[in-house]
Amino acid sequence: MKDDLAASPRVPLSRRNLIKGALGAGGAALASSAFAGNPKNLPPNVPDWTRTLGDGVATRPYGQPSKFEKNVVRRDVSWLTASRESSVSFTPLHELDGIITPNGLCFERHHGGIAEIDPEDYRLIVHGLTEKSLMLTLGDLKRFPRVNRIHFLECAANSGMEWRGAQLNGCQYTHGMVHCVQYTGVPLRLILQEAGLKQNAKWILAEGADAAAMERSVPIAKALDDCLVAYRMNGEMLRPEQGYPVRLVVPGWEGNMWVKWLRRLKIGDEPWFAREETSKYTDLLADGKARQFTFVMDAKSVITSPSPQAPVGAKGFLVISGLAWSGRGKVKRVDVSLDGGRNWRTATIDGPVLDRACVRFYAETEWNGEELLLQSRAVDDTGYVQPSKNELRKIRGTNSIYHNNGVQTWRVAPNGEVENVEVS
Amino acid sequence: MKDDLAASPRVPLSRRNLIKGALGAGGAALASSAFAGNPKNLPPNVPDWTRTLGDGVATRPYGQPSKFEKNVVRRDVSWLTASRESSVSFTPLHELDGIITPNGLCFERHHGGIAEIDPEDYRLIVHGLTEKSLMLTLGDLKRFPRVNRIHFLECAANSGMEWRGAQLNGCQYTHGMVHCVQYTGVPLRLILQEAGLKQNAKWILAEGADAAAMERSVPIAKALDDCLVAYRMNGEMLRPEQGYPVRLVVPGWEGNMWVKWLRRLKIGDEPWFAREETSKYTDLLADGKARQFTFVMDAKSVITSPSPQAPVGAKGFLVISGLAWSGRGKVKRVDVSLDGGRNWRTATIDGPVLDRACVRFYAETEWNGEELLLQSRAVDDTGYVQPSKNELRKIRGTNSIYHNNGVQTWRVAPNGEVENVEVS
Repeated sequence: MKDDLAASPRVPLSRRNLIKGALGAGGAALASSAFAGNPKNLPPNVPDWTRTLGDGVATRPYGQPSKFEKNVVRRDVSWLTASRESSVSFTPLHELDGIITPNGLCFERHHGGIAEIDPEDYRLIVHGLTEKSLMLTLGDLKRFPRVNRIHFLECAANSGMEWRGAQLNGCQYTHGMVHCVQYTGVPLRLILQEAGLKQNAKWILAEGADAAAMERSVPIAKALDDCLVAYRMNGEMLRPEQGYPVRLVVPGWEGNMWVKWLRRLKIGDEPWFAREETSKYTDLLADGKARQFTFVMDAKSVITSPSPQAPVGAKGFLVISGLAWSGRGKVKRVDVSLDGGRNWRTATIDGPVLDRACVRFYAETEWNGEELLLQSRAVDDTGYVQPSKNELRKIRGTNSIYHNNGVQTWRVAPNGEVENVEVS
Repeated sequence: MKDDLAASPRVPLSRRNLIKGALGAGGAALASSAFAGNPKNLPPNVPDWTRTLGDGVATRPYGQPSKFEKNVVRRDVSWLTASRESSVSFTPLHELDGIITPNGLCFERHHGGIAEIDPEDYRLIVHGLTEKSLMLTLGDLKRFPRVNRIHFLECAANSGMEWRGAQLNGCQYTHGMVHCVQYTGVPLRLILQEAGLKQNAKWILAEGADAAAMERSVPIAKALDDCLVAYRMNGEMLRPEQGYPVRLVVPGWEGNMWVKWLRRLKIGDEPWFAREETSKYTDLLADGKARQFTFVMDAKSVITSPSPQAPVGAKGFLVISGLAWSGRGKVKRVDVSLDGGRNWRTATIDGPVLDRACVRFYAETEWNGEELLLQSRAVDDTGYVQPSKNELRKIRGTNSIYHNNGVQTWRVAPNGEVENVEVS
């Protein structure tokens, strides 16, 4: 799947002007920007931080980012949802690389604020169509066999504002309701086996211990297949805003089902038609009918850099980078277009390609100030190809805010600035 | 590679007493511990955190762990090295699971404290036996093609106190100078190609911008093979204590070579015999001679739970868990012994198995209060088998503090407490 875009700059790199101005014919070759900054900290001077003994380890038992990275934070959109009753914050995708999202930057979506649960008083109830009921402590859960899975989690409403056109000028806002971490937890199957499922067990109600008592119905087949009752992310215990101490992991399915602060699993023979799967998280079509139980997050991708919050800094060699994921399996290929979808080239996927996890892709080019209309398009291992926004609108209309996995377009202007645009 | 230990509890799980006391003959079956705690927060009462609207997102732009997890921190050993001139803190391995270490918990080892570098004034100099010299800004580095690699980083002195017998009672202290994250960076090869290597280029000096100006010599073959000039860990920029903004990544080789706050790469035709590769980071043998340039970290493993800081909580089903890694490639197998190395069983490796990355292993058993002598033994894909401590001592003596990858033994007492012991 190698193509000319990916292959050509990688091979003859030593013969290319990778760093403009840094490549003289010989001798000392210094980038023009290399002399900008504080003269006393620049070569040949020895900077302050080398002259002075730095802090030892004692002051930082749990480490924090550099003070120079204060702009790398989750952000909300005040007019969208920033009340305590309904709040959302977005992952700064444009400031990240690789596939792992650091725990402190994973997006949030709360329906009743963050439940602050004392782990000593945490209980998980399992009841309904079971041979027996269970009431499990966190200690009990930790004694079950456990597994580790790297999965993406995407809110069904991610890119929801894009149904009606390009509205939010930043990939943090248009696509930042996705993150990807390694979860550790108990296969839900093992807990259901402990309780003993009755013959007519067909659905599970997962309920959170937050003020919204978030509820979602999950088909039993999914519960027995790959769901986890998870208590860790990226090695450490879940963060409070991610469901501490326990959340449901529903690989590849919409984030709303990954119930946080999980307190109850009720087993029944039909779905519960709870608020969050009837009035919300259903997809209203143009004719007034609604699609219900649209669980799977279909293949999607976005270019994270360049993007409106990450403009192009200089002419010359340009690395285009982004994320892709599919709720149906592995990402098989990512295509990138520089001209709004007229021509496509295969991007390089770098790093592990895991089942229902984000992959990182790169495409490299030379940019000389011309307008670009950047797009990316994911293809998963079922053969599904990420559609254009207009293809989606033709079938689904524009009433819904959910399940918009259309191709995103960023316009790179001649001055390097980037904006969210639509192409017909 | 399935064995009886791993396979037997996994298959007939529904017929085993996984949670002691939780499995009645039918009806409501509640663990005895399930009623301990604050009565008003226990079922059937609705706890405070469900009655009250929680905090929204606005207060936490960069998330932190739960206030109930304050014990999950890096720790130092005051009598070992806790001065600003020489400081070390240890990863709390016993509190973690999976393979990814959260950035805030990655161990530290500083030789002159933490350099606090303003990224605007950061420069990387490349000079010596090159066609031209380079002075690169952080922005320049970010414009190079980049890759993502999940690798372990282990200090050569990890487990160093164990050469002379069991001394530190906790896996955080005996094995906590290892972590595993996803790095994003520029292949060092590309930077050297930009500078243009002269024919006689054989070694590279990597120098840090900290007060120690840490220096190590790296063979050119390694530099061209797989080293990275990295600026990200787990997606975000490096943490200050991990070399912000730029460190060298030297996959599989001792952590001291992964120069932090990287400011200079000098290319030469022989090693520099710097302080940290002569008086330190050489391995003094019994006869007074020293091994030098012992770069590779050989295969190693440790059981992280149970361990002295993570005692066994209850009789019954017990998950034994640990980490394994090899600087020579992939971990192929991990064996676990419950009786101090007399009998071995194959553990289950769970999660991705990546080149020179940590793997997570599990072994499950029933524990009824008998004494256990827990050991783990890693085998890598070169066929190398992790040796016992005594096998190592026979060949290397006990003068060195480096490269102790011997098998660790934890004694589980009948009361569930765990201590660091040696078996002959």
